[in-house]
Amino acid sequence: MKNYVIKGNICFSKAGNELCTVENGYVVCKNGQCAGVYEDLPEEYEAFPCYNYEDHIIIPGFTDLHAHAPQYPFRGLGMDLELIDWLNTHTFVEEAKYADMEYADRAYDIFAEDLKNSATTRACIFGTIHKEATLLLMDKLEKTGIRAYVGKVNMDRNSPEYLCEDSAEQSAADTEEWLVESKRFVNVKPILTPRFTPSCTDELLEKLSGLQKKYHLPVQSHLSENLGEIEWVKELCPGTEFYGESYDRYDMFGNSCPTIMAHCVHSGEAEMEMMRKQKVFIAHCPESNANLSSGVAPVKTYLEKGMKVGLGTDIAAGSSLSIFKAMAMAVQCSKLRWRLYDQSAAPLTVEEVFYLATKGGGEFFGKVGSFEEGYEFDAVVLDDSSIKHPQELSVKERLERIIYLADDRNIAAKFVSGKEIFKK
Amino acid sequence: MKNYVIKGNICFSKAGNELCTVENGYVVCKNGQCAGVYEDLPEEYEAFPCYNYEDHIIIPGFTDLHAHAPQYPFRGLGMDLELIDWLNTHTFVEEAKYADMEYADRAYDIFAEDLKNSATTRACIFGTIHKEATLLLMDKLEKTGIRAYVGKVNMDRNSPEYLCEDSAEQSAADTEEWLVESKRFVNVKPILTPRFTPSCTDELLEKLSGLQKKYHLPVQSHLSENLGEIEWVKELCPGTEFYGESYDRYDMFGNSCPTIMAHCVHSGEAEMEMMRKQKVFIAHCPESNANLSSGVAPVKTYLEKGMKVGLGTDIAAGSSLSIFKAMAMAVQCSKLRWRLYDQSAAPLTVEEVFYLATKGGGEFFGKVGSFEEGYEFDAVVLDDSSIKHPQELSVKERLERIIYLADDRNIAAKFVSGKEIFKK
Repeated sequence: MKNYVIKGNICFSKAGNELCTVENGYVVCKNGQCAGVYEDLPEEYEAFPCYNYEDHIIIPGFTDLHAHAPQYPFRGLGMDLELIDWLNTHTFVEEAKYADMEYADRAYDIFAEDLKNSATTRACIFGTIHKEATLLLMDKLEKTGIRAYVGKVNMDRNSPEYLCEDSAEQSAADTEEWLVESKRFVNVKPILTPRFTPSCTDELLEKLSGLQKKYHLPVQSHLSENLGEIEWVKELCPGTEFYGESYDRYDMFGNSCPTIMAHCVHSGEAEMEMMRKQKVFIAHCPESNANLSSGVAPVKTYLEKGMKVGLGTDIAAGSSLSIFKAMAMAVQCSKLRWRLYDQSAAPLTVEEVFYLATKGGGEFFGKVGSFEEGYEFDAVVLDDSSIKHPQELSVKERLERIIYLADDRNIAAKFVSGKEIFKK
Repeated sequence: MKNYVIKGNICFSKAGNELCTVENGYVVCKNGQCAGVYEDLPEEYEAFPCYNYEDHIIIPGFTDLHAHAPQYPFRGLGMDLELIDWLNTHTFVEEAKYADMEYADRAYDIFAEDLKNSATTRACIFGTIHKEATLLLMDKLEKTGIRAYVGKVNMDRNSPEYLCEDSAEQSAADTEEWLVESKRFVNVKPILTPRFTPSCTDELLEKLSGLQKKYHLPVQSHLSENLGEIEWVKELCPGTEFYGESYDRYDMFGNSCPTIMAHCVHSGEAEMEMMRKQKVFIAHCPESNANLSSGVAPVKTYLEKGMKVGLGTDIAAGSSLSIFKAMAMAVQCSKLRWRLYDQSAAPLTVEEVFYLATKGGGEFFGKVGSFEEGYEFDAVVLDDSSIKHPQELSVKERLERIIYLADDRNIAAKFVSGKEIFKK
């Protein structure tokens, strides 16, 4: 079904500080695209079939700009260390298991099922270095109906022997094979995924840059998450003034290469300015940055500068796939940042984090994350009746409560690019 | 049934850094008290009936040391302000509604039902200034089987006309009437509840101190939550060196008066020292302190000094009744405090927050919050099978995940002081 109407209480963002709500309204899907939100349904759409969700809340789906699927098994575990020690102690050990396709099968089934049942309609996901396991993950995600970018991870240095690719050449060759095989997917697309500068030689980054140009691929990686990591990159990359340059010198930092950089907790002025100019997307992962004691990214500043920002769960440094939780924590962490550290950047508002979760991150996928006309039709229907209250509440107040209190129980249906992929 | 055995994976704290787990173990309830945890059931208990919970996790119940029941309707709403503005804009307006017993009935039904379905077995709760509505709240809580202290709030100054008691005399008289009527409850007990120093005249505090001595009552209030509040108390109470003295000079700050002070985010050395010596309980409310931009209390320091600390949800400055969430946020906020503000106090560990949620806060109720011998038998049975994983996990790892990821769906049964009050 390509043309239909959804009736309910519609909420969507036009901009960071512009939240639109229409009580008892209509949102129209025409050929998989949004044809607008209406208080009264225009005559031309009256013949469209109507999903009448009555008093439910209808929002665009969420985009998760940063998650590591293979880390899902140890979500909520082992967050007693900072980044580099956490990688060596917990993460690499887990990721190595994906050489075993039976383990990968069991683990990725759980990840795909939980992501399907979440309010996320778009996601950018790290796999492991393993080509076969990454294709298996893509297979499983393809079937959920969610739209996702998935990356086979590259790492050829500073990694334990059991999780280090043999050479830059081998890593690039595996990556190209994986790219070719990825062509069979429709909902899921490949994204180049050098893990982060410390785990990639210059030679590898150069080869990946070649693949990027040859196949016109987007790129995802990590940036300025932790103070120790930043120092390490400085040592590893003499001649760079800031961490972002280690990607930029291989043309994998925005401009004609669509790029997501996760974290950006400690980016300085020059790094910010390059990200702004080159339209690099920032995946803000507040729970992860608290769990690994990384800090809090200055997201308000990023928004004020007009930079591209969305939210990421960063499974498994973040414990949960819930973007509701990411939104609440983005507000909460920004308040602690303001109180404890820097009163020049005001805390984030509810309107702003809803924007980040929808239109902010959705933009990486094109016209995604809003109900403005011409946007791809992603929608999530929320039944908040389990969050009981004795008083009247406006639609905006209900949305605010949902951000703090909703979970997957409250999701009644989910549509991605016009197609209903989930219904309770 | 007074004597029985629960079989499952048993977890409990002996001390802040001493978490005990027994896989496939037994915990024995004898006359409503815990008679120990065993790997193999001693012969003397073999005749006791056994609840076999197989692979479930069995923990002592949680204590919520600080929550405002009348604020439950606006949980997750209006957290865009700091404390004093938040009180005037959102809180007092809501609390005034409890003059209307029909509203109170609807609202308190929701609160009592949600608290019953939570993993909390003990709670310390603020009502409003209204005697009748507070008795209604106690009625409803009595029926849940949870053990709770509930306070009729006192406030006779610096409060809006619609929520200000006429005089200290009237406030004290109402309080005494309420105390006398409270005698009918078994599970629920009264606790004196001067809101906080700014809303109580010296005359009122003096009268409440008289009631405290006459009826041997415990006391709950707020302390050093917000920097503006602390300045205000300094102005209101000339001659005091720190906020805590404003309660202490009326003998309502520990010693022979069991006392809970919520927050203690900004307590200085002298205040800490008095709290330590006089055994004042601190209700640490991490989510509230983030939501109202108050800051993060130095809980690690409190534990190291041997002070009494437990967790509070602080509904509705905290959005959720879940002590799981309070535990996770206590760890997360302590990490941000360490990273952004003060590297002299290490982050809290999973073991420590589990201790705070169980034995730490439980101590306010006596021997509560552990499975050591002689403790009152509170227990919560957790079914974590919905939190799927492909690998083997130890009992301790499962408990850690539960802290980050469990919600009321995972609660299979709840026992309070030997009595099963809830079962799925």
